[in-house]
Amino acid sequence: MTDRAARLTERLPETGADLMMVSSLVNVRYLTGYTGSSGLALIGPQTRVFITDFRYVEQAAAEVDPSFERRIVAQDLVDAALQELPPGAGRLAFEDAHVSVRTHARLGAILPDGVELIAGGDAVENLRAVKDGDELQRIAEATKLADAALRRILERGLAGRTERDVATALESAMRDLGAQRPSFDTIVAAGPHGALPHAHPRDIEIGADELVVIDWGAELDGYCSDCTRTVATGDLDEPALQAYDLVRQAQLAGLAAVREGVGGREADSAARAVIDEAGHGEHYGHGLGHGVGLEIHEAPRLSQRSDSVLAAGNVVTVEPGVYVPGRFGVRIEDLVVVTEAGCNILTSVPKELITVG
Amino acid sequence: MTDRAARLTERLPETGADLMMVSSLVNVRYLTGYTGSSGLALIGPQTRVFITDFRYVEQAAAEVDPSFERRIVAQDLVDAALQELPPGAGRLAFEDAHVSVRTHARLGAILPDGVELIAGGDAVENLRAVKDGDELQRIAEATKLADAALRRILERGLAGRTERDVATALESAMRDLGAQRPSFDTIVAAGPHGALPHAHPRDIEIGADELVVIDWGAELDGYCSDCTRTVATGDLDEPALQAYDLVRQAQLAGLAAVREGVGGREADSAARAVIDEAGHGEHYGHGLGHGVGLEIHEAPRLSQRSDSVLAAGNVVTVEPGVYVPGRFGVRIEDLVVVTEAGCNILTSVPKELITVG
Repeated sequence: MTDRAARLTERLPETGADLMMVSSLVNVRYLTGYTGSSGLALIGPQTRVFITDFRYVEQAAAEVDPSFERRIVAQDLVDAALQELPPGAGRLAFEDAHVSVRTHARLGAILPDGVELIAGGDAVENLRAVKDGDELQRIAEATKLADAALRRILERGLAGRTERDVATALESAMRDLGAQRPSFDTIVAAGPHGALPHAHPRDIEIGADELVVIDWGAELDGYCSDCTRTVATGDLDEPALQAYDLVRQAQLAGLAAVREGVGGREADSAARAVIDEAGHGEHYGHGLGHGVGLEIHEAPRLSQRSDSVLAAGNVVTVEPGVYVPGRFGVRIEDLVVVTEAGCNILTSVPKELITVG
Repeated sequence: MTDRAARLTERLPETGADLMMVSSLVNVRYLTGYTGSSGLALIGPQTRVFITDFRYVEQAAAEVDPSFERRIVAQDLVDAALQELPPGAGRLAFEDAHVSVRTHARLGAILPDGVELIAGGDAVENLRAVKDGDELQRIAEATKLADAALRRILERGLAGRTERDVATALESAMRDLGAQRPSFDTIVAAGPHGALPHAHPRDIEIGADELVVIDWGAELDGYCSDCTRTVATGDLDEPALQAYDLVRQAQLAGLAAVREGVGGREADSAARAVIDEAGHGEHYGHGLGHGVGLEIHEAPRLSQRSDSVLAAGNVVTVEPGVYVPGRFGVRIEDLVVVTEAGCNILTSVPKELITVG
């Protein structure tokens, strides 16, 4: 934790700043350990200050890394941060992707003499994209837990249960196994409904001989998992079987492309080419994957619009899909750790087509 | 729904704008009905445009109010919005409390000729603060559901169960009764732990003869409920009993002060005076309440820092508390609808001290 703040400080000169004000709560958590809903950190070579309000006094004392001085304030945290600045603080970086235009205008109006606001870019997000050993372990455990929950659900079968019942049972199983919460709203989408990449579970029974897209994840100790499997409830027609096989081949091609130094666009292209060549390009409208960690979507991105280059320690999804409107959808998603040589797959659920009752 | 966009259009001249770009998803939902995670609305006297990406084509078709033209785009939605502007669009309001400094800078760089960006203030939030009949019904139903879930939990008793077990059971009961999800992380905090207003449930058994603060809510059809009760698990000592009675008196004083035309600060003062006079002022560090609707915290605010004036149709919490560090906490919270004459209390759980095993 102390180490993270030190690494941010080392990188501050790149942004041209003397100090950074971190107000995004997930970034505050990453740097300080604090998990509450009101907190801000000031970080610089000689500065480690954490600011919160009355409601979080005890939580801050229990959670915030001891290298930070703690301040309890009554006013707005951002306003309070300006008063905490050391004399002649200089250039203060703020998180321009998170600070609103309104807050920025207010800060500008009350800025102490000798302080200049500068856009801090994605300094903390870039640190977060490369996971440390502790983080990798937590994400692996969240993944293991989510996998175990799915196995428990599939044992009971799918056909005849509603999408909503299956989603609720899967979320309950994750909680029973120790998850704080699902890391996003669980998707269970059968038959033609599976053609919506972000479908909401319906109060409609899953039929026999359908494909069912299940996209789920667990949050454990603040870290997310993310996985998708597409399961059959009986015999499938040839187009559905072919689409499943195609997505599986594309997913393997994506996995094979992922390693340190490869571009997010390049990895995306490797999987996309397989689907394009089979004539299903128009049925695959999203990117190959995204980083996962404290947030379910974070850096780096794997898509045609990505300018990321993969680094060892990135944790990313690899999740191509084929969505045929009015017919079915297939998506297969693993969560992987990027390494120098390739990637380590965290997900343990098999990718061969699973058929359940 | 159409009516909401019309009311926003009527108010646009107050902000000095010809058109408004609404990018906050909850505000987009309010105005268009769309519940997905990628969407933007452009609204003006002659303009009703909804923009999303590929993943939400079918959801947008199913949900977005038919008065809106729908656009499916591949680029960033905010960038796409600029291309959708009618010729000579004029002054374009943006949501300055939501749009980041970075996005604003990018917009400025690609702004078409004849378009000026202006801060749109809380135009949509101010509309949302006054609920319509449909919204009031949904909030009342969410509250009823949450109340029923608590009754179910209390029947099983509290002592001997862990805080986490009780919180999980309460959340499961809400789901069983039809809630989409808890409207926030459930608080179950026994004994001294109750002195943390935002305590997290622990894996520690609730003892006999303790106070247990339970703060929970259900989300139903997108609308939130919010309630707190403090329950005894047996005999209490005199200070705890007195604190309970004090908070109850303060809560009744707060309820009595709430009505159309009263300031958020004034309502807060009414409850705070009761606690101050009893010498517990230092043990009550938060505001009296907040608006509830599509979000668990929204306008108006009831606190010493509020400049809100209550209006009929506001839905607010009234939730004073007394937190004695190392000893116990008490909070009692109802959800109420502000009326011309006072308020209608939605919460049905009794406020007399409930003792369970």
